[in-house]
Amino acid sequence: MNAMPWQDKPENCNDVMWRYSQNPIIDRYAIPTSNSVFNSAVVPFKDGFAGVFRCDNKAVQMNIFAGFSKGGINWDIEHEPIKMKAGNTNMIDSEYKYDPRVVFIEDRFWVTWCNGYNGPTIGIGYTFDFKEFFQCENAFLPFNRNGVLFPKKINGKYAMLSRPSDNGHTPFGDIYISYSPDMKYWGEHRCVMKASKFQDSAWQCTKVGAGPIPILTDEGWLMLYHGVINTCNGFRYAMGAAILDENKPEELKYRTQPYILGPAETYEQIGDVPNVVFPCAALHDIKEDKLAVYYGAADTVVALAFGRISEIVSFTKNNSL
Amino acid sequence: MNAMPWQDKPENCNDVMWRYSQNPIIDRYAIPTSNSVFNSAVVPFKDGFAGVFRCDNKAVQMNIFAGFSKGGINWDIEHEPIKMKAGNTNMIDSEYKYDPRVVFIEDRFWVTWCNGYNGPTIGIGYTFDFKEFFQCENAFLPFNRNGVLFPKKINGKYAMLSRPSDNGHTPFGDIYISYSPDMKYWGEHRCVMKASKFQDSAWQCTKVGAGPIPILTDEGWLMLYHGVINTCNGFRYAMGAAILDENKPEELKYRTQPYILGPAETYEQIGDVPNVVFPCAALHDIKEDKLAVYYGAADTVVALAFGRISEIVSFTKNNSL
Amino acid sequence: MNAMPWQDKPENCNDVMWRYSQNPIIDRYAIPTSNSVFNSAVVPFKDGFAGVFRCDNKAVQMNIFAGFSKGGINWDIEHEPIKMKAGNTNMIDSEYKYDPRVVFIEDRFWVTWCNGYNGPTIGIGYTFDFKEFFQCENAFLPFNRNGVLFPKKINGKYAMLSRPSDNGHTPFGDIYISYSPDMKYWGEHRCVMKASKFQDSAWQCTKVGAGPIPILTDEGWLMLYHGVINTCNGFRYAMGAAILDENKPEELKYRTQPYILGPAETYEQIGDVPNVVFPCAALHDIKEDKLAVYYGAADTVVALAFGRISEIVSFTKNNSL
Amino acid sequence: MNAMPWQDKPENCNDVMWRYSQNPIIDRYAIPTSNSVFNSAVVPFKDGFAGVFRCDNKAVQMNIFAGFSKGGINWDIEHEPIKMKAGNTNMIDSEYKYDPRVVFIEDRFWVTWCNGYNGPTIGIGYTFDFKEFFQCENAFLPFNRNGVLFPKKINGKYAMLSRPSDNGHTPFGDIYISYSPDMKYWGEHRCVMKASKFQDSAWQCTKVGAGPIPILTDEGWLMLYHGVINTCNGFRYAMGAAILDENKPEELKYRTQPYILGPAETYEQIGDVPNVVFPCAALHDIKEDKLAVYYGAADTVVALAFGRISEIVSFTKNNSL
Amino acid sequence: MNAMPWQDKPENCNDVMWRYSQNPIIDRYAIPTSNSVFNSAVVPFKDGFAGVFRCDNKAVQMNIFAGFSKGGINWDIEHEPIKMKAGNTNMIDSEYKYDPRVVFIEDRFWVTWCNGYNGPTIGIGYTFDFKEFFQCENAFLPFNRNGVLFPKKINGKYAMLSRPSDNGHTPFGDIYISYSPDMKYWGEHRCVMKASKFQDSAWQCTKVGAGPIPILTDEGWLMLYHGVINTCNGFRYAMGAAILDENKPEELKYRTQPYILGPAETYEQIGDVPNVVFPCAALHDIKEDKLAVYYGAADTVVALAFGRISEIVSFTKNNSL
Amino acid sequence: MNAMPWQDKPENCNDVMWRYSQNPIIDRYAIPTSNSVFNSAVVPFKDGFAGVFRCDNKAVQMNIFAGFSKGGINWDIEHEPIKMKAGNTNMIDSEYKYDPRVVFIEDRFWVTWCNGYNGPTIGIGYTFDFKEFFQCENAFLPFNRNGVLFPKKINGKYAMLSRPSDNGHTPFGDIYISYSPDMKYWGEHRCVMKASKFQDSAWQCTKVGAGPIPILTDEGWLMLYHGVINTCNGFRYAMGAAILDENKPEELKYRTQPYILGPAETYEQIGDVPNVVFPCAALHDIKEDKLAVYYGAADTVVALAFGRISEIVSFTKNNSL
Repeated sequence: MNAMPWQDKPENCNDVMWRYSQNPIIDRYAIPTSNSVFNSAVVPFKDGFAGVFRCDNKAVQMNIFAGFSKGGINWDIEHEPIKMKAGNTNMIDSEYKYDPRVVFIEDRFWVTWCNGYNGPTIGIGYTFDFKEFFQCENAFLPFNRNGVLFPKKINGKYAMLSRPSDNGHTPFGDIYISYSPDMKYWGEHRCVMKASKFQDSAWQCTKVGAGPIPILTDEGWLMLYHGVINTCNGFRYAMGAAILDENKPEELKYRTQPYILGPAETYEQIGDVPNVVFPCAALHDIKEDKLAVYYGAADTVVALAFGRISEIVSFTKNNSL
Repeated sequence: MNAMPWQDKPENCNDVMWRYSQNPIIDRYAIPTSNSVFNSAVVPFKDGFAGVFRCDNKAVQMNIFAGFSKGGINWDIEHEPIKMKAGNTNMIDSEYKYDPRVVFIEDRFWVTWCNGYNGPTIGIGYTFDFKEFFQCENAFLPFNRNGVLFPKKINGKYAMLSRPSDNGHTPFGDIYISYSPDMKYWGEHRCVMKASKFQDSAWQCTKVGAGPIPILTDEGWLMLYHGVINTCNGFRYAMGAAILDENKPEELKYRTQPYILGPAETYEQIGDVPNVVFPCAALHDIKEDKLAVYYGAADTVVALAFGRISEIVSFTKNNSL
Repeated sequence: MNAMPWQDKPENCNDVMWRYSQNPIIDRYAIPTSNSVFNSAVVPFKDGFAGVFRCDNKAVQMNIFAGFSKGGINWDIEHEPIKMKAGNTNMIDSEYKYDPRVVFIEDRFWVTWCNGYNGPTIGIGYTFDFKEFFQCENAFLPFNRNGVLFPKKINGKYAMLSRPSDNGHTPFGDIYISYSPDMKYWGEHRCVMKASKFQDSAWQCTKVGAGPIPILTDEGWLMLYHGVINTCNGFRYAMGAAILDENKPEELKYRTQPYILGPAETYEQIGDVPNVVFPCAALHDIKEDKLAVYYGAADTVVALAFGRISEIVSFTKNNSL
Repeated sequence: MNAMPWQDKPENCNDVMWRYSQNPIIDRYAIPTSNSVFNSAVVPFKDGFAGVFRCDNKAVQMNIFAGFSKGGINWDIEHEPIKMKAGNTNMIDSEYKYDPRVVFIEDRFWVTWCNGYNGPTIGIGYTFDFKEFFQCENAFLPFNRNGVLFPKKINGKYAMLSRPSDNGHTPFGDIYISYSPDMKYWGEHRCVMKASKFQDSAWQCTKVGAGPIPILTDEGWLMLYHGVINTCNGFRYAMGAAILDENKPEELKYRTQPYILGPAETYEQIGDVPNVVFPCAALHDIKEDKLAVYYGAADTVVALAFGRISEIVSFTKNNSL
Repeated sequence: MNAMPWQDKPENCNDVMWRYSQNPIIDRYAIPTSNSVFNSAVVPFKDGFAGVFRCDNKAVQMNIFAGFSKGGINWDIEHEPIKMKAGNTNMIDSEYKYDPRVVFIEDRFWVTWCNGYNGPTIGIGYTFDFKEFFQCENAFLPFNRNGVLFPKKINGKYAMLSRPSDNGHTPFGDIYISYSPDMKYWGEHRCVMKASKFQDSAWQCTKVGAGPIPILTDEGWLMLYHGVINTCNGFRYAMGAAILDENKPEELKYRTQPYILGPAETYEQIGDVPNVVFPCAALHDIKEDKLAVYYGAADTVVALAFGRISEIVSFTKNNSL
Repeated sequence: MNAMPWQDKPENCNDVMWRYSQNPIIDRYAIPTSNSVFNSAVVPFKDGFAGVFRCDNKAVQMNIFAGFSKGGINWDIEHEPIKMKAGNTNMIDSEYKYDPRVVFIEDRFWVTWCNGYNGPTIGIGYTFDFKEFFQCENAFLPFNRNGVLFPKKINGKYAMLSRPSDNGHTPFGDIYISYSPDMKYWGEHRCVMKASKFQDSAWQCTKVGAGPIPILTDEGWLMLYHGVINTCNGFRYAMGAAILDENKPEELKYRTQPYILGPAETYEQIGDVPNVVFPCAALHDIKEDKLAVYYGAADTVVALAFGRISEIVSFTKNNSL
């Protein structure tokens, strides 16, 4: 198996996360039809890595594409979008697909994404090989976004984070958890984490949404997330970290008052949607204490940032809201 | 058992529904604390009728109250709101409760309502006797309103209509159906009926939501619903009828292009929210071909309207959008 | 020829206009399909009167209907909407028709209305007999409302007032004039009269639009119009009067600072859209110094008000903004 | 001196306030130019009563007028608005004046009102005789409304309640207090009472503003106020009561969770702005334990309601939010 | 006559249009008073080129200026704005002028622009020499923008594309065509092309407007246009292509689902209005199969892009929505 | 005493102000906790300079920090925010502090800032040494921003400019002046300067607010200010200059129709809030005719621009709106 991407922290850096020196790693024109490639998900696969990528085409239609990489940095993305077969349901509408997440549970890779079914809701699918994909029932009624599965069952049930939403540029957003015995019927909805008050932590005062698949640590689940502030010149997305209870993840233990990565590089500040850092996936190695976060930058490209898991966890505890 | 409320159609009336001559049947000050009593649900119970009533108090806090009646017209409403015990869950938050529906399935009366859990969603409870009530899991994530159960399982599962919503005065709204094996986990969400186009049927062009428990007829499920138009002076709510397929109720067979009851009487045109006719419950007698619809008027009082089921069904088929 | 409708001013009345004592003259259910009948136009025709009526049906679809009356008060309205034949164009789309005006010029009756062509604009048609109607080119691009023709050519050209608009509940509106040599091509657009400043005359500070066909008086064209204020509980429509120059009607000579008829009776204050007085037509007799204004009330019914032309003209001069 | 207006509580009334049986006491057309007369202030004066009345004219221009009454119910209102002379300043702009309050302090009657100076702010004036009025400096920068003086100095300074506002239909509003040594310079601004949370007391969840001059009771200052809820069909104004600390009136001791008078009569539910109960003044007699509140109804007329001071105070304590 | 500007397609470029390597060609400070120079129109003139340029001054007042160039790349722009003389009308108001287009028809150069007459509408003028300009009647009532004439009469009439608008940042916009026998009166308004559905082609789902003068090709009129998407951080303008029927240009034959040039270079992504590519003019040579499009970038500068007409036409046919 | 920062005008520069060649002078990460450092105030202090800096931390909480510099370009900013002691009041709430101004009057340095007290209002404090700070009464009720003191009493009273505001991204804003005998009670509020009309000077048509402390010149007070235009992609802030009467500063003598510094450099066009030039302080030397303006750029960094006072004054007179 190949090693996950990694660069050590630069010498003069005091931050808990740092950017890959060759960012962005995927260009907006990475495939012939694409206008932008961003907000994408990767996982270890065979001896390398596989992923599901959001590639908006030049008609700015949103769809998800499979891709493969040996080292996790240079990616071969399919030129045709993923074509789903029916999973645990009859085929249902999918006006568009975007912002995928991928996770391996038990025997297969589960994919969730924002699925266009009379507005955005959470689509679910699975694959064994990143070639054949099966589409299941939507998890929820519209409107919803940022559905993120936990990497194992909790108390015998699948668990999913999501962010109830509206059909537009949603000026609100809190993170909820829901459970399912079978990936088909969902219930036991609980509120996990709300947007903060402006005075307490303004960068995340408009909305928050889960990012990569949560990572189990000694302190509980490490959930990286995006937070948004509504400035007079538009939304600004940055990244924070939270710790959820291992067995009752609806219980929030800590969340960072400061952001841990915010838009400050040109490729984050300029693009189709300026000032966006939007984490969607992470590779990690608990033993080596390494974390590599894949994030969409300015809704235009994919970039990479690194951190030490232990350091992020302790930072989260020590700087909790 | 007492007969359901009834008045024959007035002689000069050409409409498919007609109002009770003594409307409104429940006054805004029906209990000592109430500011308004409206949008309430009734069912046959023992030798008379029982119901769950929305009584907003004079702080305009919303809550639901049990009530009893011999003939379905004069009601004794409890002065204290329903106090729930835990049902299929730990007790969950309920910041407010409003717009109840009640239905008997198998062995008990199920109550659904708009439940305040970080915004409106669908609360579920049950009772055997209208004295002791048990609160179950919320059916859905916020934001949702107008959760209406079918009176029997469909293909072995509970089925619920609902209207995904937002946290305010919601300027949109379509009717969806969801299924559950156990009243706890919900899935198989399908869109049943959308707000119409302005040109096609403007009275229901802003939003639509299910009203009373659907009634099984030879043509399928008769679903009475509210439709809303957004005038320059506010929302106007009227009532329509639709027929859903008996075994696949996500399939809409007919829906009335015209409304069948709209705000035209003073108690419907004036009140806390003018121009509202909002049906929440119906008593019916298939053999006698009678229907009595309970509706909130102007968000202030409860009124009653009558119709012949067969006539409503044929009207719906003959005037379908 | 029958006399126009008339009642003398009540004794204790100090106003320049007064209501017909039997108002409203046309009920919302005047024809079997109607939800409301309002904002309609009448003219002398043969030995009585004819008119074009806005009857929204119970699907709240808007359409226009011919009607006839001997005395101008009791009206027989056709149960089927006007069916247009092609006039000076191929038949064009008409998603809906509402708020008609009618005027006799030279040899025929011209009808203008708000025509649904990708949003509201001004439709034009003509009839000789109120049985056969011919539809011409729309006068303008969308979005426009309240197109009102002058009753004779001015400087050899047809002249039309209109109110550029948007596709919704339009929170603005000024009156313009446009000219045409042929009822097909329009130009020489000039601004005639704007909504006033809040401090100067708040009842007409949100928008103004022409009402009945202008009436030629010694002082110039008497233009009755509606003015709107946006209160915290919706738009309120009242009626004012203005005098335009006879030969250059783009020159406004006077306009009333006070309204001359505002919503104060129950049928004006309650209905599908509360607080609306919307004049669309007037019968007049210069010799007898009589004016009878037909106005929609609360977007629900048609009502009638009377005045002395000379008194209205002098009131307008003496109370000009 | 004449007795203040009074009617005993009706027998079957369980409310803490009750309406005058002949309401409304002042009609919208009370003076020849008026479109509406509402939101007005009265005080004992000589052997009867005097007042300052908001009369919007038929151009819907807002201005204030002096008026006189022997018994406080039938009022002679001047036909010309109050014409101010310069008080403690050069004459300043006043684009409009509305919603007056009047209070006697030390040697004169002080009038405050909403003064149009590049938007609404608090105007101050005084009179000795209700014939000659002197206009002082505006108390605050725009935008502000509902400036209400205390009837005596507190800790040696004048004290004024107000509600910071915006230039439109203000969808927010909390009550502040400010102090002045000289009625010219104001400071020591403190927040007194905020709009409540929706769940706690929805009728006052959008905004609150002080009404009549506070009345000193054994429990502290009795402040009647208006609270507003934003329904889907517009703002609804009702009346509540609060108790402020006698010597530190910025300290709120109690406030009613329920409203004590809400729009339920036709003249409150219908008018230029439906569903408005807006108290602006009160006559009281501590010894006789009588209170008579003058309130604007539907922004159209003036109405009167009565209560027992002691009962209102104890109700406020016992039903406090 | 000088050759039109041209650069061959770069080797590794797969796009149908490519940028000039020295972009931008006109700087924001091109004339002493200018804050920005963009959205401008050029035509062949004598042995070189002339143009009408939008130069907003440092007060951000909008006006149009004549300019001249030998090769079409380096421009001499007059330092004083164009001063109009009366054309086919009395001089009419012009509060501002922006976004000009220029076309030669028969004997003269016609200029259209967005003319401030109580809001934006389409101004028309002509010149023979780019020194003396004559202003005609406005084509339409307000509100309108992007009036673009066809380069020859169609069926004996002048034809103009335009985009009905509102008075602000217009969140909608479809392209219409209108005809005129005389450049004074306009009629026969038809809808040509609407903003697309979000799912079909999101880059043009908010509004579309005609760009350069249409070019006659074997397939019909080639109309380049701008399309807009409303992102959460503002409007993004890109360029598409459409083919209209030669003799009935209201008939749309093809339109590109993908954009053909979108903001991706720094000078397009940053400036007074980020993310704007706004084509206003094109030079072309049918024989040489060359097209040079002048477009405003970021509402700040003028840039140039090239393409092969035949390739754009076939791309439009093969990638039509 | 050290000389103030200075660079001579570049040779090819025709503008009245020019940027420091090493801009920005303070980076967003200038102190360990900062996300951005901008909108800050400096004054001569001892033999160098002191200042109060707005440093938003990485939770995007706003606070003000003291700083010191020898030459006015390189700054040592404290790592802990200013901790206030009670001044002329009990300690009052301060949810946040931002956008400080500093001025020396008589015996001390007065600091004003935007103070969070139930929304933004003007906080006042003073210091003698930039180590110990004392907080006084807020000047005004909420909502207000940009409180700027004059550097000496005017007619015996303190004078302050401010911009009444709302609680969000305020789409309006005019400059007012208020007076106080004692820095505690404020009155004599007068409007000084309004946002301009769009046609007259669009860069300042949305709002205007005072910037640095006014500078007394022979022509009156030189007030630099920010003006804002609301583009379709957000607010754009630029800088203008105005002259106020020396003894009656509520009298505006001149104001620049053009801006004198607008966002055109990358650090002004990109950042947390793109396109912002926001002046907060100035150092000046009347004898040497030098002015150095400190301004926030893109709400992210601090930059510096220079000008000749005499030239700015004459430019303002010669280019007045």
